[in-house]
Amino acid sequence: MKSDVEIAQEAQMKPIVEIAKQLDIPEEELELYGRYKTKVSLETWERIKDRPDGKLILVSAINPTPAGEGKTTTSVGLSDALRKINKKTIVALREPSLGPCFGIKGGAAGGGYAQVVPMEDINLHFTGDFHAITSAHNLLAAVIDNHIQQGNELGLDVRRITWRRVVDLNDRALRNIVCGMGGKAHGVPRETGFDITVASEMMAILCLAKDLDDMKKRIGKIIIGYTFDGRPVRAEELNVTGALTLLFKDAIKPNLVQTLEGTPAFVHGGPFANIAHGCNSIMATKFALKLADVVVTEAGFGADLGAEKFLDIKCRFANIRPDAVVIVATVRALKMHGGMDKKELATVDMKALEAGITNLTKHIENMQKFGLPTVVAINAFPTDTKEELDFVEAKCNEMGVEVALSEVWAKGGDGGIDLANKVMAATEKTNNFKFMYDVNESIEAKITAVAKEIYGADGVVFTPPAQKAIKELTDLGLSNMPVCMAKTQSSLSDDPAKFGRPTNFTVTVREIKVSAGAGFIVALTGSILTMPGLPKHPAAERMDITNDGKITGLF
Amino acid sequence: MKSDVEIAQEAQMKPIVEIAKQLDIPEEELELYGRYKTKVSLETWERIKDRPDGKLILVSAINPTPAGEGKTTTSVGLSDALRKINKKTIVALREPSLGPCFGIKGGAAGGGYAQVVPMEDINLHFTGDFHAITSAHNLLAAVIDNHIQQGNELGLDVRRITWRRVVDLNDRALRNIVCGMGGKAHGVPRETGFDITVASEMMAILCLAKDLDDMKKRIGKIIIGYTFDGRPVRAEELNVTGALTLLFKDAIKPNLVQTLEGTPAFVHGGPFANIAHGCNSIMATKFALKLADVVVTEAGFGADLGAEKFLDIKCRFANIRPDAVVIVATVRALKMHGGMDKKELATVDMKALEAGITNLTKHIENMQKFGLPTVVAINAFPTDTKEELDFVEAKCNEMGVEVALSEVWAKGGDGGIDLANKVMAATEKTNNFKFMYDVNESIEAKITAVAKEIYGADGVVFTPPAQKAIKELTDLGLSNMPVCMAKTQSSLSDDPAKFGRPTNFTVTVREIKVSAGAGFIVALTGSILTMPGLPKHPAAERMDITNDGKITGLF
Repeated sequence: MKSDVEIAQEAQMKPIVEIAKQLDIPEEELELYGRYKTKVSLETWERIKDRPDGKLILVSAINPTPAGEGKTTTSVGLSDALRKINKKTIVALREPSLGPCFGIKGGAAGGGYAQVVPMEDINLHFTGDFHAITSAHNLLAAVIDNHIQQGNELGLDVRRITWRRVVDLNDRALRNIVCGMGGKAHGVPRETGFDITVASEMMAILCLAKDLDDMKKRIGKIIIGYTFDGRPVRAEELNVTGALTLLFKDAIKPNLVQTLEGTPAFVHGGPFANIAHGCNSIMATKFALKLADVVVTEAGFGADLGAEKFLDIKCRFANIRPDAVVIVATVRALKMHGGMDKKELATVDMKALEAGITNLTKHIENMQKFGLPTVVAINAFPTDTKEELDFVEAKCNEMGVEVALSEVWAKGGDGGIDLANKVMAATEKTNNFKFMYDVNESIEAKITAVAKEIYGADGVVFTPPAQKAIKELTDLGLSNMPVCMAKTQSSLSDDPAKFGRPTNFTVTVREIKVSAGAGFIVALTGSILTMPGLPKHPAAERMDITNDGKITGLF
Repeated sequence: MKSDVEIAQEAQMKPIVEIAKQLDIPEEELELYGRYKTKVSLETWERIKDRPDGKLILVSAINPTPAGEGKTTTSVGLSDALRKINKKTIVALREPSLGPCFGIKGGAAGGGYAQVVPMEDINLHFTGDFHAITSAHNLLAAVIDNHIQQGNELGLDVRRITWRRVVDLNDRALRNIVCGMGGKAHGVPRETGFDITVASEMMAILCLAKDLDDMKKRIGKIIIGYTFDGRPVRAEELNVTGALTLLFKDAIKPNLVQTLEGTPAFVHGGPFANIAHGCNSIMATKFALKLADVVVTEAGFGADLGAEKFLDIKCRFANIRPDAVVIVATVRALKMHGGMDKKELATVDMKALEAGITNLTKHIENMQKFGLPTVVAINAFPTDTKEELDFVEAKCNEMGVEVALSEVWAKGGDGGIDLANKVMAATEKTNNFKFMYDVNESIEAKITAVAKEIYGADGVVFTPPAQKAIKELTDLGLSNMPVCMAKTQSSLSDDPAKFGRPTNFTVTVREIKVSAGAGFIVALTGSILTMPGLPKHPAAERMDITNDGKITGLF
C-alpha cells in the first residue's frame, strides 16, 4: 500500500506552462513558482472576464467522521473523470493549512490516485498566500498595539480589542495570552490571543475580494475593536490599509497546479468552515468558470455548514450558482450515524445503515430546498457490500437522486466515470436556485431560517450576550449582511453527539461577531476553537527529508 | 528627485533566466518565482563545487549614523562598477526583513541607482525564506508547549524555556507575554515572548548550514531550555527535526536576482547583526564564489561588529577569507563622530572632521590586524567639500590605504569605477588573514581579545550572571565555539553615546547565551532588543498599491 506522498512523488507532472497552455493562458500571463506551480496574472482576468461561465459543480458531504468523507479526493477524481468523458474541466480547491498538516491530518491535497500535485509544496508553504495573510493580519495587530502605546488618540478600549493575532500552526498555548508585559517601554498589558491563520478575517476577505481595490475597501472596513464609549473602530482609521493591501499583491492571484492526471487545478484560499465561509477564493472560481466548460469545487465540512455558506455567502457575493451538487458519503459514516461504534464500522449492520441514512437524506432534502439538482457519491471502501450499496442507492432514487460509486482514491479518474456522467446529467435538470434568506431580514430571522430549514431545528435560543450583540450590530446598521454559522461539523444539530437526523432540538446561539470587512455576521453555536492544539504525537514526528530533498511522512 | 521605488519601477529588468545564463546556469537548474526572481537548485552546487573560488570583497563601514552609511548601496554599485571594468561579478546580500520595512527604514535593497530589483518583491515576501524560518521556529515552540501540556516527560522547567517565538514584524507588545492562559485545556501558563524573525537561531542556522543534512543536525542541537535539574534539552529530543528541516526545503536554496544594471545578485538570508552574525548565507556566498571572478558581499552594522563576526564566525565556518575589505564612510558621519550636532552635519567643520576621523582610522587599523588589504569608500553627499575629502584621503593614505569617492547612489556603476579599480588593486596586495582568537580559548579570553583588539577597550567586566552562564557552558563542554558579540552599533565601545575612537573604557558583558545549533556563544553587552517597536508614524502609513498593482511608498 503506497502512501499519498509516494504516489505523488511517482507522478510524471507536466510543466505547468503546458497545463496553462491547455487553457489558452500564454506563458507571459503566468508567474511561475518553480516548474509545477504558477500564479495566473490579473491580466488574464481582463482578457477572459466577458466570456460565458462554464458549469459549476459543488462537492459537499454528509456530516463527516473525524477522518472526513473524502470531499477533496472526490472533487479531484471527479474532475479527472470529467476530462475522461471529454469535458474541459478545472477543479478549484482550498489551500491546506500548515497547522493540521503538522498536527493530525498530514496533508490536504486529496488522496490516493486523486491528488493535486506537487503535493509536498501545496501542503507546505505553496506560493506563500497564507504567509501573506499571517503577515498582514499581524501587522494590523502590531499597529493597533503601537497606536495604544503612542498615546491612544482614538481612545481604544484595551478590554475591547477584537482583532487578535494569527499563526498558521496548531498552538494551543497561544489561545489566550497577556501581551505588553515588561513595563512602560514594552507596550500596554492586555488580554488577547492567537487564532490559526485560516480563521483570520483577512483570509475570508482574500477569498471574497474581486480585486485589489475591493480588497483594500474590505480591509479598511474591518472592525478591530471599540472605543471607551462603544464606537466600533475600523482598520482604515489606523492609516495602514494601503500597506496591508500591498502584502496581498501576489496572494490575490489564483494558483494553478495540476492533478495526478494532468487536470488543471486552481488551489487558492482556504478560510475556516466554521467562523468563516470555508470555500476557495471567488477569484479562482471565476477564473475557472471562464476557462473551462465544467468547474468542480468544494466547500468545507458537511453540506449543512459548507454548502449552505457556499450558497448563501459565496454565491451571493460572486453572483454565481452551482449547476449541480454532489454529496459525498461513505457507508461507514452512515452506519456511524446509525449509532454503530466507530471500531465496528467495517462490519455489515443494515439496521444501523437504515437509521444512519437519514443524515444523507436530510442533506439531499436541503439541497432540494436550495433548488439544486443533486447527485450522491459513495466514496468506496473495500469493506462496503453490495447489499449496503444497493440500499443507499434505492433510498436516494426514491428522492429522485442518482447515486454513483466513486473509486477515484484507488483508480483515479477511471474510478469516477459513472459519477461524472451522472453529474453531467444532473446539470441538465431544472435549476431553481434560491438563497435560504434575504440579507435584509433581521439577524435573528436569518439565523432561524438556516437552523429550521437546514439543520431541522425547532427554533433558535439566543443567549443574553448574543441578544446584546445583535442589538448592538443592528443599532450600528450592520445587520444586513449574510450570516456565517459556526457550528459543530459532526452533527446537523449544534450537539456533536447527535448523529443521523436529529429532531426535537433547538440551536443555541451563544455569541455573535461581525466580520465587517469580509461582509458577514458570525453566529457561534457552542464553543468553537479558532486555534487547534497538537495531539500527543503530532504528525510532524513522522516527517523527514533527505539531503537531496526527498520527503517522507506527508500524507 | 525620484524615490527608490520609482527608479526601480523604471528599470528594464532582464528575465532572470538570462541573468542565470550569463553565469552558465541552465534554466533546468532554476526554480523561478515569477519572471525576475529564482532559486538556484542544489544540483548546480554539485556541478560547480570543485571549481576554484573567485575573489571575495567584504563591504563594511564605520560606526553608522541611524540612517546607515550605505553599505548595501555601495556593495551594489561596486559590483556594477566591477562589471564595467570587465570583471565577472556577483553581489551577495542579505534579505530584508518586513519589520523595519513597515517600521522606520522602508526597504533595504540598496538605494538610488544602486539597487537590487525587483525591489518591491525583495522588500516584501520575496521567495518566502523568512516565512519558512518563522514557521519552523514557531512549530518548534508549539511542540515544546504541547510537550509540557501532554505530561512533560522530559521534565522541562517552564521557568527556563529559552526558545521563544518569532514574527517578522516590529511588534513591541509581543516582547514579553504570558501564554497558556485560560485553564487546563489551553496549556500551561508561563512567561515567554516573541523576537523578530531575523533574530531567530533558525535564521543563523540557515545562513551557516552547508546542506539539508547539516541544517538538520544543527536544528537538532538547538538548546530549547533546561530541565528541572538543569540539564540542557536539545530540539532533537522532541522528535520533530525532520519536520522542521522539511520547512526549509526551498529556503535553503540561494535566491538570484539582479541589480538595476543587470549584475547578478544573490540575496539570501539575513540574520541580526547583534545576537547573530549578520551576513548573508554561506550557501549563497559559496555559490557566488564558484560562479564569478569577483564577489562583493556585506556584513551588518560597523566593522567592529559586522566585519569581525564575518571574519571570526562566517569565514571560520565556511573556510573562506576576503581578498579585500571596503570600509564605507560618509563625511557627515565622521563629523558626527567628531562631536558635531546631527542637524549641522551639512556645514564644514574641519575640527570636527579631524576629531571624528579617528573612528575610521581605528576600523582601518582593525582590518589591518586581521591582515586584510583595505580600501575606504566615501559615500558621496552633495554637501561634501574638496577640503574635507582631501583631508580624509590624506589621513587614510598615511596608513597605506587608498580612498575612493563612491557616487553609485546618484550614478550607478559609473559612480564606482575608481572604487572598483582601487579594490582590484587591493586584492593583489599581501593578505595575512588571521582570526582574532582561537575557538579553543576560554569564553572570557575570546571576548577579551575582541574587546581589546577591535573595540580598543582596556578590558572586560563580566557581571555575576554572565560569569555563572560562562561556568555553566564551560562545564557542559560548550565553550569551544566562536563568540558572537551583541553590542551597540553606534560606538566602538558598548556605550552608544561614545563617538569617535573611545579610549579608557571597559566593556561590560551582562549576559551569555548559547546558540548551540548555529554554533556560537552570544555575549550581550548592554540591553539588546530582539524585537523592535514601531515609531509613532510607521513607514506603513505612507505605502499604497493601485488596483493594477503599482506600489508607492516603499523606499
